[in-house]
Amino acid sequence: MHRKASMTGSMKNPLDSLLPHIREMEGYVPGEQLNTRKYIKLNTNENPYPPSPDVLVAIQKQLQRGIEQYPDPLATSFRLMAASQLGVRPESILCGNGSDDILTIVTRAFLGTSESLGIPYPSYTLYETLATLEQANIVFVPFTNEWTVDLRKINDSKRLKLFYLPNPNSPTGTVLRKEELIDLAERLPCPLLVDEAYADFTSESAIDLIEAYPNIMVSRTLSKSYSLAGLRFGYLVATPPLIEQLLKVKDSYNCNALSIAAATAAIADQKWFAQNRQKILTQREKFSDELSQLGFEVLPSSANFVWCSHPAHESQTLYKRLRENHILVRYMRYPHWGEGLRITIGTEEQLEALLVILRRLCRQK
Amino acid sequence: MHRKASMTGSMKNPLDSLLPHIREMEGYVPGEQLNTRKYIKLNTNENPYPPSPDVLVAIQKQLQRGIEQYPDPLATSFRLMAASQLGVRPESILCGNGSDDILTIVTRAFLGTSESLGIPYPSYTLYETLATLEQANIVFVPFTNEWTVDLRKINDSKRLKLFYLPNPNSPTGTVLRKEELIDLAERLPCPLLVDEAYADFTSESAIDLIEAYPNIMVSRTLSKSYSLAGLRFGYLVATPPLIEQLLKVKDSYNCNALSIAAATAAIADQKWFAQNRQKILTQREKFSDELSQLGFEVLPSSANFVWCSHPAHESQTLYKRLRENHILVRYMRYPHWGEGLRITIGTEEQLEALLVILRRLCRQK
Repeated sequence: MHRKASMTGSMKNPLDSLLPHIREMEGYVPGEQLNTRKYIKLNTNENPYPPSPDVLVAIQKQLQRGIEQYPDPLATSFRLMAASQLGVRPESILCGNGSDDILTIVTRAFLGTSESLGIPYPSYTLYETLATLEQANIVFVPFTNEWTVDLRKINDSKRLKLFYLPNPNSPTGTVLRKEELIDLAERLPCPLLVDEAYADFTSESAIDLIEAYPNIMVSRTLSKSYSLAGLRFGYLVATPPLIEQLLKVKDSYNCNALSIAAATAAIADQKWFAQNRQKILTQREKFSDELSQLGFEVLPSSANFVWCSHPAHESQTLYKRLRENHILVRYMRYPHWGEGLRITIGTEEQLEALLVILRRLCRQK
Repeated sequence: MHRKASMTGSMKNPLDSLLPHIREMEGYVPGEQLNTRKYIKLNTNENPYPPSPDVLVAIQKQLQRGIEQYPDPLATSFRLMAASQLGVRPESILCGNGSDDILTIVTRAFLGTSESLGIPYPSYTLYETLATLEQANIVFVPFTNEWTVDLRKINDSKRLKLFYLPNPNSPTGTVLRKEELIDLAERLPCPLLVDEAYADFTSESAIDLIEAYPNIMVSRTLSKSYSLAGLRFGYLVATPPLIEQLLKVKDSYNCNALSIAAATAAIADQKWFAQNRQKILTQREKFSDELSQLGFEVLPSSANFVWCSHPAHESQTLYKRLRENHILVRYMRYPHWGEGLRITIGTEEQLEALLVILRRLCRQK
């Protein structure tokens, strides 16, 4: 009988009810997440080291307190701890279900239909997806030869409603210095979100600029430098009146109870953080040198990955060969700019395994 | 120097850059989440019993596998398990960071600026917030005396672009029968999302209607019936082509690794679920009777809460007196409809503690 009812044809196909921009858009494609331990995974910039042991203790404590009640909508424990670590007020922090959630919230708050989001090119392709979801436009600002962003390279910067600057940038790993950030913030007619997903792997941060330049917001994630990609926790630092407005856009219970406990413990253990960070920085320099010796062109990286390409070997072919050898790196192609491999800094052993294959591949012609 | 730069006044106040509808809206206010154990918490419809022991085992296993890598963007393990429990295909399931995330995704996919979302009145106030975020309008359809939804009560049902029906409804606890759902789906010119957050506490579900009525979608949560409010996990059941479209709107990694593991184990343990459910249903009937004996008007509930008011006592006063006695219930006021208390079905002990106070309060005049 149900089937018969549906045959009357009176009912509209729900696909026809989708907003046209949703139906027509392509979804964001994240890096491959293969659920197997057979691969050395150097494609999505995760931390190769486990989180602080304190994180596990905090999760166990929360499990004992129970998980049947809703979490704290404001993640107060994290806000207090992060505020003291960062030297800001707790009211300056908005917590999110990963920094992707933060980016979604900010996009929805500032970017209207047919308005323009500015981003450097090449950068994090998710920004384009977020703008498309709001039926907004993208204005690409190509990087200068010195890897900075010069608004004079475009002729319509006055109509920008929001600017996203990943700093350090992905996929290039390059970074704008503080003076360059200030210059950009001063020239922009709109808020500037500095996406500091990778900032822990350099010494630059815009967090201390927020008070003097209230149009700057800074997003951070605990996925990379704090080894919590699986738990989804990110945050925004901005002026308290702005945070108060953005709270209206987030889902009430956007961060879960175990993630809040874990993130709070992770950011509290700065010693563990500093040790892991140092290992990654050391390995990044060594690995970059090794790649150069193999003939790769390697951009100087301020992140936990390197961007490289080889003048004599196709990046996509190298990606495929590595994959056949159970090593995943990210092959990326940016039209009108170039293509290459983005390789996450893994453990010494993982990187050595990768180099063994690359040495073999790059000797063959 | 930074401070000086900000004094030039060339910089725009970022609050002025917010989209006007964001600046002007009020945020959704969830029930009080007091982080103290001093209160008996019967205000946000959590399950008073812990989740299945299998959930804790699954979380420990995931912790051993690690939390430093990104989770599965599709939550495949949950989709497979839920599909077999529900008798649908895994491709019919979209997982979310709580069913609020599901509602956000569906709203963003179907509801454009100035378009109309239909909802019954009174119902879940979050729907209004979600529509406001999209600059859309709300069309309220008042419940009939038989607690059903009759589109003839409004004269502009043809312009609806989406309809949200909580079934059972909150705050009333009432439920539409399947024939009424079918009638509504057939009359609507748009998709119908049946929000089944509380469906596990009744025998009605629209999941088996989706194949014959593809304009029906069903959202579910593991917060209530599976005791996982702290972990944020919900899902949508709809036709696979629709799920494929909606995947474009969600954040890539919207569900975290521990939540996916926990939700998969929770829905697998149907024995634990059925035991808890039965306890809640038994207590619901007993508690409703007790309230009636105290002179309360109690709506017959199909959910894990009851809606009641007392002809001789102000609901808000009762709420305050209970709060002073460390018992939290939800006082709600719906303009042009009425006010009352929404009381979650807790444990026998919690409900008895509440009744002790109410007996005292309702004897006083």
